[in-house]
Formats: sequence, structure tokens, C-alpha cells
Amino acid sequence: MEVAIGIDIGGTNTVFGLVDRKGNCISEGTIRTDKYENVKDYVKELSEEIFKILSVLDNEYDIRGIGVGAPNGNYFKGTVDFAPNLKWKGIINFAELFKEHFEVPVILTNDANAAAIGEMIFGAAKGMKNFVVVTLGTGLGSGFVSNGEMIYGHDGFAGELGHTIVFHDGRKCGCGRKGCLEQYASSTGIVKTVQEMLDSTIEDSILKNYKPEEITSKLIYEAAHQGDNLAIEAFDFTGRVLGFSLANTVAITSPEAIILFGGLALAGEYIFKPTKMYMEYYMLNIFKNKVKLLPSQIVGKNAAVLGASALVWKDII
Amino acid sequence: MEVAIGIDIGGTNTVFGLVDRKGNCISEGTIRTDKYENVKDYVKELSEEIFKILSVLDNEYDIRGIGVGAPNGNYFKGTVDFAPNLKWKGIINFAELFKEHFEVPVILTNDANAAAIGEMIFGAAKGMKNFVVVTLGTGLGSGFVSNGEMIYGHDGFAGELGHTIVFHDGRKCGCGRKGCLEQYASSTGIVKTVQEMLDSTIEDSILKNYKPEEITSKLIYEAAHQGDNLAIEAFDFTGRVLGFSLANTVAITSPEAIILFGGLALAGEYIFKPTKMYMEYYMLNIFKNKVKLLPSQIVGKNAAVLGASALVWKDII
Repeated sequence: MEVAIGIDIGGTNTVFGLVDRKGNCISEGTIRTDKYENVKDYVKELSEEIFKILSVLDNEYDIRGIGVGAPNGNYFKGTVDFAPNLKWKGIINFAELFKEHFEVPVILTNDANAAAIGEMIFGAAKGMKNFVVVTLGTGLGSGFVSNGEMIYGHDGFAGELGHTIVFHDGRKCGCGRKGCLEQYASSTGIVKTVQEMLDSTIEDSILKNYKPEEITSKLIYEAAHQGDNLAIEAFDFTGRVLGFSLANTVAITSPEAIILFGGLALAGEYIFKPTKMYMEYYMLNIFKNKVKLLPSQIVGKNAAVLGASALVWKDII
Repeated sequence: MEVAIGIDIGGTNTVFGLVDRKGNCISEGTIRTDKYENVKDYVKELSEEIFKILSVLDNEYDIRGIGVGAPNGNYFKGTVDFAPNLKWKGIINFAELFKEHFEVPVILTNDANAAAIGEMIFGAAKGMKNFVVVTLGTGLGSGFVSNGEMIYGHDGFAGELGHTIVFHDGRKCGCGRKGCLEQYASSTGIVKTVQEMLDSTIEDSILKNYKPEEITSKLIYEAAHQGDNLAIEAFDFTGRVLGFSLANTVAITSPEAIILFGGLALAGEYIFKPTKMYMEYYMLNIFKNKVKLLPSQIVGKNAAVLGASALVWKDII
């Protein structure tokens, strides 16, 4: 049996799994990312855990490669460069580190690009040559596919839609600038929107029962579900900013579809409806009502592992 | 001798020429575009003119194809769709029309994409796999190349950077929306900027000697050259808006270089210096000081014909 190893490196946890060519996750595991001072110890432990799940497989297996999704991952170099949410500083050559334990190709990119390849191989973008995946989590990530190929750009870091500026003097961003899209269209962004609204409105809201720092995107979703006006308005504003940005994005790459992935995308119609409406409102005429806005089809707890494994199935025939 | 026919269809004039594989324009001609009520008459006349310049060639020639740059050109269909500045309305299948006169492949795209392919084959982007060409003329056009391929997008209309919105309640655009980049960063845009400035400043300026409707981008350039503060400030503002947009663009496709083409780009340092400065100012850290801002290398009166002919040399081996 042919398998690919998919690894998703997050700030807190690392999830890994064995995935077959059809996108079945055969086996899975997880270790803490933040427990290891030395990155070599981390890779050693992770490799041992992978060998463990391989050893209990019934069939013989043939590992075709390792796909890794990681923050600030560089496809061309196989490195993770200056990831702010990882313990290990500077440039880490994960591709090389994994090759000390496995004699197979290692393909690494950032998590949003891995999600995009995942959608192309197993999910909502099957058969598409031109599409965009937008991951709405703590931040906003994106992966662009044109002519059937991932846009990694000249340096491997393309797809930073979350750091396009949408408001000229907007909210401060972790990147040191102001008004970046991810400060509005992300779990963190909608929380900030609600905190600002609570600060400035006399309107009643379920969310007034919480301290500002207790607000989460989940609470906002639940409030919206109960018909809370302020929560619904917060989703509307989020969709407006996101829809505006997506209309600008469409003008550049003219995708067949935009796929929303990640935590905030699970809010379903609360986020899809306003995003679609404003996207069409701001859209240049020639693109109006042509671009599909779709939910991810690799949802569920395995999504990140499937995405990472798809890097292998995409590159290896 | 192998030649490609390059045709640039403009609203007023059509320029055409024979170009060899090295980018030498062997012979050239022009006809009026706006003289023909019927598009078939136009294509017939144009074809006859092309046969004329072919008939006086010394060497035997082998026509490898026809490349056409045209407003609203659709690469996939070989059509021009609803071009506002052409007489012929609706969808015009130029590829088919030319095939009535020539038995060679016809490759058609919009003028900015043709310019981008021109830079890749003959100009400033030789050897580059990831770059953007921005044409600063009456409007703002753009062509994106990633992974060595033109981004035509799902429907063939990608690259409408000029119609990304940069100001939420900005200048009215011909497309029916507000705040599009081309209302600021184009010959027309800088004229509007100067008109607005003249309206609101008590500052002295050479440009006050003209009626608002007499102002042209050439006059602004000449005034800047004479040290006119208002003209220099107008270039600064134009560069600021363009630089801002280019920084956002870099975050998406991470190009090796951005190449400025067209009338306003000929203003040299007056436009390059502020554009570069603000581009770096607004740039996300990981891209800072990495992306080259270059002038076109297919300048001169043949530029559009060279660009169009390059479509042939790009697609035909």
C-alpha cells in the first residue's frame, strides 16, 4: 500500500497521519510542539511516533513522501523561517531534519498552501485549475492556485492575503503595520469587532454578559444563532471586509472558486452570506456572479493532515 | 526566416509588424481602427496591409503565428468582449476572423498581458518565472506571471489590478464603482490629482497657467522637471497610491520584479522614486527590499507590436 505522511506543525500541537492516495486517513497521532527546547529532539520524537503507527499497519506499506504544513514554511528551501509562534528561532531546515530519519522526499509549505493543495487533491477544488483557499483561524492565511500550480512566488512566501492592507489607518497588526485584513477577517478579528461594538453601543446583547477578554468567536457564533443583533452585525461587518478583499483578489487572479477553510468558516451562513453579498457588491462587472464561494471539503479533525499529505500526492506521480 | 505577426489593437490606431524570434521588428505598419463600421472590413484591410509588408521582404519567410493585444481580449476564446473603446459591440471573435485570411495559429490577449509576455521573451523579465507588469497609460493594466506562466485566470480576464479598490469612497471610475487604482495611478489619474490640487491650494504653480481641462500628464512631467512643487507633489501622491497597491500585490504573488510600462512610466525617477519608497514603506516585513521595481525594456514605438508578437514565441516552440 502506498502512503504519504502528513504532518501539521502548530504552535502548541503537531498532528500527523498516514494518508492513502484517495485521501483516507489510515492512522493518526499527535505530540506537543512546545515541549522541546531543541528542534532535533522534537523531530526525533515525532519520527519515532510515526514509526510506531507505521509498525502496527496490517498491510505492507510504501512511504511515497512526507508533506509538512508549517507556519512560515518555505516550499523552495524546505525550511521554516522565523515563525513567531514556534519556540525555535531563526531558520529551521525541517526537510533536512526529517531526512535524518526517513529516506523519502520531504515537501514543506505553509499551512494555508497545504490546505489549498488538500482541496485540490481531495476536496472542494478537485478538477479546478484556478482557485483560492482562505483559512480563517487565529489569523488569515491563503493559498493561490493558478494554471493548476500553487503560486509560491519568487521566494516561496506568496499568498499572504491576510497581510494586505484594507484600511489605511486601521487596527494594529502583529506584523507592525496597520489595517491588515487578518485583523478583521479571522477569529481574532471578529472578537475585536465585537469588543469595539460593545464599547460603543447602547444596544442590548447577550455578549454584554461577558467581560471583553472573555469573548470568543464561538460565543459570537452562539449569540448569532440565538438571534443576537450585535453578533449578527459583527458577522456582517466581517463579511463586508472579507468580501471587499475577495473582490479585489478576484480582479487579480480571476479564480473559479474561493474556498473558506478553518474555524470561522464553520460559522456557515453567518459568515458565508454577508461575505458573498459584499463580494458581489464590490465586484468588477465582468466577474460578477461568476466566482463560487465554497466551504472546505476537507473539514474535520484530519483536515490539516490531509492537506499536508496532499503535498506528496500533488508532487509525486 | 521565421516571423511572428504582432498586432496591437487600440481604440484609434492599430499597429502591426513582423518580428523575428530575437525581437527584431523587421517591418511595421499602421491603420486606423475607428474607420470601419464593420469589423470584417477592418480585418480584411488589416490583413491586406500585412500581406503588403510581407510581399516586400527580401528573404523567404515562415509565419509562425499571429499575436494580438487588444482591450478586453480573452486568451481562452480568442475574442474581444465588450470593449468600451472599440466601435464594434458585443463579443468579437478576432481569432476566427483572422483565420479567414491566415492559416496560422492566432493568440489573443489583452494589451497588458501581451506587454508582460513581451517583457518575458524580449525585455526586463527575461529568465524570470514570477513577475508583474503594470502598464500606466490612460488606464492601468497589469499582467501577472507565476511559475513561468501567464495568469489568465478561470475566465481569461485575470490581471485587472487597475480595478482593485484602494479608497473606500474614492474617485468615480468608468467601471461604475469608486476608488479604483486606475483613477489614481495612470496618466488620467495624475491629471485628476493635479486638478484637485489646483482647486484646493493657494500654492503657486506653473500648472496654474492652464485651464483644468488643458492639463496633461506630459505638462505635469515638464512642470516637475522645472522644479514645480505642485507637480512633484502630484507624482508623490501617485507613487504613494501605486506603491501601496504594489505592496498589497506583492503579498499575494511574491514576484521577483514589478515592471512599469507605458506613458506615465516614462516619467522616470519622478514616478519610480516615490513608488519605490512607498512600496517599501507599506511592504510586509518578509518582502521588504526584495522586489525589484524596473522600467520596461521593450520601450519605444514598437513596444506593443513586440509584446503581441511575443505571444507567438511564448506558445510556439
